[in-house]
Amino acid sequence: MTSETRQVRLANRPMGMPDEATWSLATEELPSITEGQLLVKVDYISIDPAMRGWLNDVRSYLPPVQIGEVMRSLDIATVVGSAHPDFAVGDVVSGMFGVTQYAVCDGADAQKVDVATAPAPTWLGTLGIPGMTAYFGLLDVGKLKAGETVVVSAAAGAVGSAVGQIAKARGATVVGIAGGPDKCRMLTDELGFDAAVDYRNENVLRRLREVVPDGMDVYFDNVGGDTLDAALANLRHGARVVICGGISAYNEEKLPPGPSRYMSLLVFRASMTGFVVFDYAERYAEATEQISAWLADGLMQAREQIVEGGVEKFGECLNMLFTGAGTGTGTGTGKLILAV
Amino acid sequence: MTSETRQVRLANRPMGMPDEATWSLATEELPSITEGQLLVKVDYISIDPAMRGWLNDVRSYLPPVQIGEVMRSLDIATVVGSAHPDFAVGDVVSGMFGVTQYAVCDGADAQKVDVATAPAPTWLGTLGIPGMTAYFGLLDVGKLKAGETVVVSAAAGAVGSAVGQIAKARGATVVGIAGGPDKCRMLTDELGFDAAVDYRNENVLRRLREVVPDGMDVYFDNVGGDTLDAALANLRHGARVVICGGISAYNEEKLPPGPSRYMSLLVFRASMTGFVVFDYAERYAEATEQISAWLADGLMQAREQIVEGGVEKFGECLNMLFTGAGTGTGTGTGKLILAV
Repeated sequence: MTSETRQVRLANRPMGMPDEATWSLATEELPSITEGQLLVKVDYISIDPAMRGWLNDVRSYLPPVQIGEVMRSLDIATVVGSAHPDFAVGDVVSGMFGVTQYAVCDGADAQKVDVATAPAPTWLGTLGIPGMTAYFGLLDVGKLKAGETVVVSAAAGAVGSAVGQIAKARGATVVGIAGGPDKCRMLTDELGFDAAVDYRNENVLRRLREVVPDGMDVYFDNVGGDTLDAALANLRHGARVVICGGISAYNEEKLPPGPSRYMSLLVFRASMTGFVVFDYAERYAEATEQISAWLADGLMQAREQIVEGGVEKFGECLNMLFTGAGTGTGTGTGKLILAV
Repeated sequence: MTSETRQVRLANRPMGMPDEATWSLATEELPSITEGQLLVKVDYISIDPAMRGWLNDVRSYLPPVQIGEVMRSLDIATVVGSAHPDFAVGDVVSGMFGVTQYAVCDGADAQKVDVATAPAPTWLGTLGIPGMTAYFGLLDVGKLKAGETVVVSAAAGAVGSAVGQIAKARGATVVGIAGGPDKCRMLTDELGFDAAVDYRNENVLRRLREVVPDGMDVYFDNVGGDTLDAALANLRHGARVVICGGISAYNEEKLPPGPSRYMSLLVFRASMTGFVVFDYAERYAEATEQISAWLADGLMQAREQIVEGGVEKFGECLNMLFTGAGTGTGTGTGKLILAV
C-alpha cells in the first residue's frame, strides 16, 4: 500500500490570474488509517470556477484556502484501504479530498458513487455539484415555469449546459450565451437550445433583443460583467435573475463596476437572487433522481472534458476555465475534469 | 370663473441637472367643462424624485413627458366647477393634474380626499404615494418580519421617513442613512430610529458594520451608488434588498457603474428586487387605513416641507430634491410639496 502522495498546495495568493508562483507541488507521507478511516486513490478532480474565490483571503461561503494547505477540490476516488465497515476496497467514492493523488479520510467524509447508473466523471458534472447547481438554481431560485423563456450565460460550461437542458426538459424556450461559433453551434445542434448568442462576435444586448423580443423570464448568470447588463436590458415583467457566479471578475484585483442597469429591476419589477448550492444538500437525492431519469430518457446529455496529466497539471487546467479553453475546442463542453 | 391658467411645460430635455432651459412658463386658455368634467384649482403639487426620470426619452414604467407638454405631477386641488354628479364645488381631490394653477379633468381622473382624517398635504406624503411606496415596498417586497433589522437610505425623505416609522411600528430595529447631523438627529430624536448614519461625514460601509454588526435583513434603497454598495457589504443571510429608487444617478448623463458588490447577494443568499408602487393601486385602501391608524396612535408622524411660490417656483423646488436642500433645513423632513 502506498505511503506517500503528491499534492498541490497554495504557495502564494494570486493577484489576478493564478500562475506558477501560486502553487507548490509537495510530496507528503500519509498516515496509516485507523478505525473508521479510508485510504483513497483520487481518480478525477473537479475543476471549478469557485476555486478562484477560495484563493482570496475574504469572507465568503467557505473559508479561504490557507497558504501551505492542500488545494481544496471535490474528487472521485477509489477506496484502496478501508478500516470502516461500510466501505470495501474497490468502492468508488466522492469527497473533498483535495488536489492530491491519495488521501486518508474518515468514512463520514466519503460518499459512495453509483457507477452502474453513470460513469464516474458524470458524478462530478451533470450528476454532481454543477448539475445540482443548475437544478436548484433554475427551479428553486429561478422558479421556472413551463412556457417561459430562459437565457443562460457560460452556456457551454458545466452548469450552463445543464441549466439549458433542464429548462428544455421543463418546457421552456432556451437561449445560451457562449464564446465562439463552435460552442454556439453545439448548443443549438447537439443540446437542443433554441438559439445561441456568441458574445465574442456579437453585440449581446442587441442580439438578445432579436432572439427574445418579448424579454426573458429567467436569466441564469454565471459570468457577470457586460453580459449581465445586456440581460438586464432584456427582462420581462416579473423576471428572475439568478446569480450563480461572476467568472468575468474572478481574476480582477479590484472589484470591477457592478451592473449599471440594475435599475431595470425596478422597471421590470424583477428580482436578482444569489444562492449557494450547498444550502440544498439535503435535497441532492431529489435532483439526482430527476436528472438520472432525464439522462436515461435522452432529455439530457452529460458532457465532460477530461484533461489528462495528474496533479502536476492542476494550475494549467484551472486556468483553462478563465481563458475559455475549457470548452473551446469544439470537442469539449460541460464539466472540466482533471484525471489523476 | 377663471378661464386661463399658468402652467410649466417641458421645453428641453435636461442633460444632467434640470435648469432654466428645461422649463417654459405658459399661459393657456381653459376649455369650458362639459358633462362629467370638473374644473379644479391646484393647491399643492407633489415634488418627486421620479419626476427626473419622466424627463428622459427612455422606456420606463410611465411614458416620458413630451417636449411642449405640461409637466406631469400629482396634485391636491379644490373643485371650483363641476359638471359631474359625484363632485361638488369645494370638494378636495387628488389627481395627475400637472404643474398648473387650474385644470379641467374628467371626474374619473379625480379622487376625493378626506381632509377630516388628515390635512391635505399629508395626502401627498405619508398618506399619499410616498406612504404607499414605503408600506408595500417594506412589507410586501421586503417581507419584513418583527424583530428584524432594517436600514433605509434617504431616510429623512418622504419615502425613507415613512419606511423607518412603519418598520418601527412593526417591531423592527431601524437605521437611517441621511445627509448631515441635523437630519440624523431628527431621525433618532424625533422619529424613533434606533440609529442614523451621516453619509456626508461618515464612512457608510464602516459605520453600518458598527451599528448593525450582525448585518441587515432588509435594505430599502432610495439612492443607489456607493450607499447601495455599503449596504451590500453588510447584509445578513437571506436579506432582501428593495430597490425603490436611485436618486444619486438621476441626473447622470451616462449610466454610472452599478453596485460592484452585487455578488454579496450570493454570499448572503440575498435578493434584490425592484418594484413600482402603482402595481399596488388596488390595495392602497389597506395601506391608507393602516397608516391612518398608526398616525392616530402616535406611532407615526406625518412630515411635509411646503415650499411657497406657485408654479413659477417649480424648477427650483424640484432641484431641492437632488441637492439635499429638500430636507436639509432642520425644520423640513419628509414630503417636499410646492404650494400653488
